[in-house]
Amino acid sequence: MTKSTITAGDRSDAEIIRVAARNEADNPSSKRVVFDAGQPLELDAGASLGPWQIAYETYGTLNAERSNAILVCHALTGDQYVASENPITGKPGWWSLLVGPGKPVDTNRFFVICANVLGGCLGTTGPASTNPDTGKPWGLELPVVTIRDMVRSQARLIDHLGIETLFAVIGGSMGGMQVLQWAVSYPERVFAALPIAAAARHSSQNIAFHEVGRQAVMADPDWAHGRYHEQGLRPSKGLAVARMAAHITYLSDAALHRKFGRNLQDREAITFGFDADFQIESYLRHQGMTFVDRFDANSYLYVTRAMDYFDIAADFDGSLARAFLHSPTRFCVMSFTSDWLFPTSESKAVVRALNASAANVSFVEVESDRGHDAFLLDEPEMFRTVDGFLTGAACARGLAVPGSAA
Amino acid sequence: MTKSTITAGDRSDAEIIRVAARNEADNPSSKRVVFDAGQPLELDAGASLGPWQIAYETYGTLNAERSNAILVCHALTGDQYVASENPITGKPGWWSLLVGPGKPVDTNRFFVICANVLGGCLGTTGPASTNPDTGKPWGLELPVVTIRDMVRSQARLIDHLGIETLFAVIGGSMGGMQVLQWAVSYPERVFAALPIAAAARHSSQNIAFHEVGRQAVMADPDWAHGRYHEQGLRPSKGLAVARMAAHITYLSDAALHRKFGRNLQDREAITFGFDADFQIESYLRHQGMTFVDRFDANSYLYVTRAMDYFDIAADFDGSLARAFLHSPTRFCVMSFTSDWLFPTSESKAVVRALNASAANVSFVEVESDRGHDAFLLDEPEMFRTVDGFLTGAACARGLAVPGSAA
Repeated sequence: MTKSTITAGDRSDAEIIRVAARNEADNPSSKRVVFDAGQPLELDAGASLGPWQIAYETYGTLNAERSNAILVCHALTGDQYVASENPITGKPGWWSLLVGPGKPVDTNRFFVICANVLGGCLGTTGPASTNPDTGKPWGLELPVVTIRDMVRSQARLIDHLGIETLFAVIGGSMGGMQVLQWAVSYPERVFAALPIAAAARHSSQNIAFHEVGRQAVMADPDWAHGRYHEQGLRPSKGLAVARMAAHITYLSDAALHRKFGRNLQDREAITFGFDADFQIESYLRHQGMTFVDRFDANSYLYVTRAMDYFDIAADFDGSLARAFLHSPTRFCVMSFTSDWLFPTSESKAVVRALNASAANVSFVEVESDRGHDAFLLDEPEMFRTVDGFLTGAACARGLAVPGSAA
Repeated sequence: MTKSTITAGDRSDAEIIRVAARNEADNPSSKRVVFDAGQPLELDAGASLGPWQIAYETYGTLNAERSNAILVCHALTGDQYVASENPITGKPGWWSLLVGPGKPVDTNRFFVICANVLGGCLGTTGPASTNPDTGKPWGLELPVVTIRDMVRSQARLIDHLGIETLFAVIGGSMGGMQVLQWAVSYPERVFAALPIAAAARHSSQNIAFHEVGRQAVMADPDWAHGRYHEQGLRPSKGLAVARMAAHITYLSDAALHRKFGRNLQDREAITFGFDADFQIESYLRHQGMTFVDRFDANSYLYVTRAMDYFDIAADFDGSLARAFLHSPTRFCVMSFTSDWLFPTSESKAVVRALNASAANVSFVEVESDRGHDAFLLDEPEMFRTVDGFLTGAACARGLAVPGSAA
């Protein structure tokens, strides 16, 4: 029955990747800023975190006025390598379709910043980072962080870079949550905001799926109550199951039907067993297996928890409109028709609140059958919208078009 | 961190329940028929299963003409106790709202039969049953079974009861799959068929969710490659995670929002930890914990696999209409508006095929925001439809109304 469970033959490559991943948590391949004990980060949980660090990448050039900076916020399992090769997987940047020279987020024009989130595992302080007090990985001793904490850490980075106001903040999914939080926490520092496939709160169903994922991780005895690093373990099976469950929610029923249907994997007939007879099974197992090589299990707990806790209106007596009152920011809210994880109704709730607070907002629902993952894919309507919105905002901000006689 | 994982303090009650469950697999509290080695059941996997047994309950009285029998088929984790107390949980029958004296499936009028499915764990042969060749539980040595095998086993029971033609076959979800298979395998033996919240095939997304559940079970080291019974183990954590993931798919987003929203569980504020802060988390954990006390983990693998393999059209060169050609059965197909696991589109595909094959079919889409689970709940429109359809069919069949001068 070995083939029925998630295993792999020769994992020496994976082993190498794991070691690399471990080092990335403390010593990222990207840029980073280290804040010492005298410059702590105040967390929503009430704790003061310091020393701490934030890992980030930049693309393009900051202009003399420091007015052309775009912050890209990444999703749950994303990273700072938005438009450059991920040092662990060797894959191209996760949003390299959207961000780069001549792309909708044009690095010939804009200075693009992307930071690993707080609680992550690629260089910004998270549970896999070394706790300076013990010399061991933080594990569950790291205070639980929130989306607001992530944004707070990014603001510190922006301060460090000497940028007063961001030209734009852009992100999808959890990245979109950060965009909204930026507009609420630092309205004067965000000229334009583009939350994609996001929501102003995590729904009951969203929380439910995350809870399943966390329980899958914690059910794995190799999780060892979060102390697996020290014991030379990895809760790979539990984390793979978590990823498999989550992955289903990123795709639409229609996309799954179109991509896989009931097609069999490398066989002519069903085998009357528990091997991966169907392509969809093989695909999901692959998703689970490769994920554990690039992501830390405790980080998965922390970042999913941050999303669960996200509820902007809750900080404003239940009124989302009040959160955006007197906002000077220009908003473009975007959703996808087949996204059932962050459905259009959630984006519309944001748009309603923005309108109720007399904010400057436009809304685009992109026709796509690819589900939530559409924001990461080749979606021309999304590209055109981002391009148009940024061009209009750049015009309003008085940003010169490169090469033109400005 | 103990509270963050699925555990329970005093499990002596649960322990008692588990022992009971183990005995139910071989010695059900219900009726049963034992078929000896000379009366084997031929399986789609190619194996011949014998001796084997089928456990069932009956309600009401079979009339002299043996023409008033209704077979109720249960769903994935259901059982034969459709309208009577479950011997393990002590809970009322799972469809006692629909089946009973004076109910839409009126046991004053009809003779109702409900059998535990093949591969199940409440008395019909399944992986928890004792393999007569070894004296140990079958475990994964039991051949994988299909929905058609389940129906074949039920036909043997109906033979045993001396019933030539069933007045009706009714079931929801996997029960509805069995209804459709009955109509295809034994068209002359089914006068009326009522598949509810079902489909003629398991979709890619359906298979995906089942695969996650199976991987969660098999990732649990206490699963012991299926031999946990002999080692005194139970893969409770893995099975609980499987149930939690599945349970989300049984409810609609709207139902989750209405029932739980972002409400906190017995606390005033979030705790910045991994306890069940939210009601939905607490609810899901409870669902997971209680499930493992009543259901066998290997049975979960077998029955989910049977559903995955279900694809009626595949047996007819991809033509669902051909499957129903010349069907003498009267059909009423029912779906629920908010069911995203077995959406209305799947029921409509069945209706289209039935119309294309000139079958007698009516279709009802019940307005409900409760998702897939609606078929088990108090849904008056469903009750009225079942009542009306059965009354009409009884009329057509010439069944006397009790108490009337027939």
